[in-house]
Amino acid sequence: MRIALLQLNATIGAFDKNRARLEQAYREAVEKGAELVLAPELFLCGYPPRDLLLRGDFVQRGLDCLDSLAGAIGRVPLIVGYVDRNPARPGRALCNAAAVIQNGEITHRVTKSLLPTYDVFDEDRYFEPAAKVFPVEINGRKIAVTICEDIWNDADFWPERRYRCDPVVDLVKAGATLIVNISASPWQRGKEATRLAMLQRVARDERVPLVQVNMVGGNDELIFDGHSVALNAHGNVLALGASFAEEVLVVDIGGSDSVPTLTSQTLPSNQEEQLFRALVLGVRDYVGKCGFKSVVLGLSGGIDSALVAVIAAEALGADKVWGVSLPSRYSSEGSLSDAAQLAKKLGIRYDVLPIAEPVVEVEKTLGGVFEGRTPDATEENVQSRLRGLLLMALSNKFGPLVLTTGNKSELAVGYCTLYGDMCGALAVIADVLKTEIYALARWINRDEEIIPWNTIEKPPSAELRPNQTDQDSLPPYDVLDRILHHYVVDDADPKMLVSQGISLETVRDVLNKIVFSEYKRRQAAPGLKVSPRAFGMGRRVPIAQGFRG
Amino acid sequence: MRIALLQLNATIGAFDKNRARLEQAYREAVEKGAELVLAPELFLCGYPPRDLLLRGDFVQRGLDCLDSLAGAIGRVPLIVGYVDRNPARPGRALCNAAAVIQNGEITHRVTKSLLPTYDVFDEDRYFEPAAKVFPVEINGRKIAVTICEDIWNDADFWPERRYRCDPVVDLVKAGATLIVNISASPWQRGKEATRLAMLQRVARDERVPLVQVNMVGGNDELIFDGHSVALNAHGNVLALGASFAEEVLVVDIGGSDSVPTLTSQTLPSNQEEQLFRALVLGVRDYVGKCGFKSVVLGLSGGIDSALVAVIAAEALGADKVWGVSLPSRYSSEGSLSDAAQLAKKLGIRYDVLPIAEPVVEVEKTLGGVFEGRTPDATEENVQSRLRGLLLMALSNKFGPLVLTTGNKSELAVGYCTLYGDMCGALAVIADVLKTEIYALARWINRDEEIIPWNTIEKPPSAELRPNQTDQDSLPPYDVLDRILHHYVVDDADPKMLVSQGISLETVRDVLNKIVFSEYKRRQAAPGLKVSPRAFGMGRRVPIAQGFRG
Repeated sequence: MRIALLQLNATIGAFDKNRARLEQAYREAVEKGAELVLAPELFLCGYPPRDLLLRGDFVQRGLDCLDSLAGAIGRVPLIVGYVDRNPARPGRALCNAAAVIQNGEITHRVTKSLLPTYDVFDEDRYFEPAAKVFPVEINGRKIAVTICEDIWNDADFWPERRYRCDPVVDLVKAGATLIVNISASPWQRGKEATRLAMLQRVARDERVPLVQVNMVGGNDELIFDGHSVALNAHGNVLALGASFAEEVLVVDIGGSDSVPTLTSQTLPSNQEEQLFRALVLGVRDYVGKCGFKSVVLGLSGGIDSALVAVIAAEALGADKVWGVSLPSRYSSEGSLSDAAQLAKKLGIRYDVLPIAEPVVEVEKTLGGVFEGRTPDATEENVQSRLRGLLLMALSNKFGPLVLTTGNKSELAVGYCTLYGDMCGALAVIADVLKTEIYALARWINRDEEIIPWNTIEKPPSAELRPNQTDQDSLPPYDVLDRILHHYVVDDADPKMLVSQGISLETVRDVLNKIVFSEYKRRQAAPGLKVSPRAFGMGRRVPIAQGFRG
Repeated sequence: MRIALLQLNATIGAFDKNRARLEQAYREAVEKGAELVLAPELFLCGYPPRDLLLRGDFVQRGLDCLDSLAGAIGRVPLIVGYVDRNPARPGRALCNAAAVIQNGEITHRVTKSLLPTYDVFDEDRYFEPAAKVFPVEINGRKIAVTICEDIWNDADFWPERRYRCDPVVDLVKAGATLIVNISASPWQRGKEATRLAMLQRVARDERVPLVQVNMVGGNDELIFDGHSVALNAHGNVLALGASFAEEVLVVDIGGSDSVPTLTSQTLPSNQEEQLFRALVLGVRDYVGKCGFKSVVLGLSGGIDSALVAVIAAEALGADKVWGVSLPSRYSSEGSLSDAAQLAKKLGIRYDVLPIAEPVVEVEKTLGGVFEGRTPDATEENVQSRLRGLLLMALSNKFGPLVLTTGNKSELAVGYCTLYGDMCGALAVIADVLKTEIYALARWINRDEEIIPWNTIEKPPSAELRPNQTDQDSLPPYDVLDRILHHYVVDDADPKMLVSQGISLETVRDVLNKIVFSEYKRRQAAPGLKVSPRAFGMGRRVPIAQGFRG
């Protein structure tokens, strides 16, 4: 049996565009001899549609779009994800559904059973789960049609299980001889390997071939990585979809009379490269899907902005990236020349806009009320905010979208200026810890010096006062990142950190900084999610609260 | 039977403080002869704790706190809300629970059945619902102990019902002769009347007395209004708790041998007054619970900032409010004198910081790159951002929290400057439409001119270019607000607006503005929620999306 996996990129709410792309890929699959074609979860409306689902006109547009799509489907069946209305009330108004379409008709409608409601996922907010599951018979074969989370109910992943049923097990018991999974499974570091191992275990345990098609592309914070896969009943890989790119993947999974060929292809193993490609895709799609063509960012001469410039140039092309140096009286010569060197190496437009004069005027304006007060962080923030103001002015006048360049370590402890260096439409590396930034920068320089080595090797500094370095206010980044991983990503008890040899004073200080800076993060730009726990929509913490752990 | 309703104000995560307040109020209730004492939903940890619930140390602290509390409870039973661990897996890890405590022991634990997962509520993210319900026997009486949403499953409120069971009906069938409801039910306009009518219907339908204790106080965006209530079996009001204030409300609900007295007290009926009191409480608690003492805000001479100044002065006292005028070359004389007059009337500190000079320096800095370009919104935004920068500098130097003064109509269509007039820690009137702002301002001036009448009566203007008025870019506010109510609050189909006589062009233009400005709202300060649908955590819309409706 020849199956096509349409690993495609959907834009949320762009029904006509998504449908046109799907129809084109369907025709390509049919030409290649596919007998069954699969498209991702909620492909017609894009994932995650979030509260657009509360709009009746949005849901109706999707249903109309599904009807139009059906007219373009011939004898080769297509399975595609869409939003259905829940016909049975009481219950939630909608279902996350899959339609089986053949010869212009919707022949089956399948409802998702397991609805993720954790981290960035809110599916219980919208959807009613399937009351029971049954295999779908397509061209004489009983097929288990599952949607994303339906296949993740593996006891190995959930030692304390959240879900009461396991639709895959039930469907195979009911006679399914093929497991189909249509997904919109977002990426985070290592996710492709975790996902493949889980799928292999399911295929092996159930002794049934398994095909999964996954969404690809960036939608706001989320990056979908593709890596669609076909497995035989032993869990061996028959075909593997592209990483972070669209692909129409056609695979023979065999039948009763044939043994399909295994592929020698494996998942890409370089973690830095995968992270880089994820961020590149995230930037390209956010900028493009927002209707922008180019970006502007501040180049401080530091490692964070350098890394973001490299990612942006890869995502959009060097001619679409504008780097701006905004030196103050405290900026070092080295920083300025590092920024210029990077811009030259990347071939991006580069300008220098000194902020010293506006700083003087602002300080004059404040002179009266500030009289008798000594300089403090206020004056540092003024510099940072003037830089943000200038970048926004370039954006307003010429149209590029501002990228903000703060990293996760800074954002966690509030080592950043709200309305200053936090200005921007997309926070490219907001979910990358400082220690990971260094690893990524070194990987970028693996063959040649793209990011100046001086940028990578000098002590990190905000350069907002003389001889300032980050470590004046923060513990060393390896210690800080250990605390952050433990406390923010794992939500673990901070007391355990002390037993692991970090001083109580350091732990308390970092914790207080994290809690106190929640108000800054509430107003932060959306950040590309690449870890199991990013700041933003997947971490919802009150601001006015008294718990310190 | 004499019951005490502890309508108290909890701070999220401040376990010791909440417990101390509760113990003090419990003692007061006992002294007043209470035979049963009720405290609100999740009172010990505060509501909503949101993702703090994912922290094991947070949950454990709450359980320890409950144990300590039990030690302070004597023969008069207390029912209080807390977070329990769900002992039965699979299922979600926690329960939203009520403990019945008597003589130092937790005698019963009751689990919430209906978990709101819509708007600002995410309870399915954390909690497992009750598998079944049963009345609790306290001092020989069978009592239906319900938690907030458990009592809202009224077919009149949910024509298409979301929930499959009705715990109140089941509990009364099982013999309960008193319905207790402990709530953290947030306010929105008209909510107190809706809630009371619903409770009256429940009492009447079930023919059982009903007491509800509701939380009071502001927690980030949410404002809890109190209005706790005791009803007899006919739905008549026996006692009514304070509006937007703490109260230990003691009421005799009668027994088999006595008929309790009805109260003549009714809900406050002035809608403007209620809105004003809600906003005052929201400001006071946000500022206080964040650990701040005072606020600063820009006074433009316009109606929005004037209203926020009045609210802040009422919430914190005039000596804790600092108004700053930040005139540019386009600011009118009238605006400046209106701002000064208001500040004088309120008795708040008032300063004038002209921004003309910094604007000139910024424009000089940008002169090279801007050469040959004509002025546009860029230059307007520079002014707004310099104002934000100066207010933030005052906040950084002297410690007051910045209040931002944008209204819901502006925020909806993006008629505001990100990092400019949107700067601030709390958006006081972000959920109040411009037409509602006018009504509130006129109510404030009902007896004397607090807000200068000139501020109220002049055409609204951002004063960012000569002779600018809001209606240069926007439809009249009554039309705009009708569109916003329909599209944003009701999520209704915009096509219906055209059939109601608004031009297609106007509807399209407003819709495009709403969708396009989503990126600004994502970075907006938290705003006090006073409508059924506020921007912020209760409205989750993708930014990069193609649906226009």
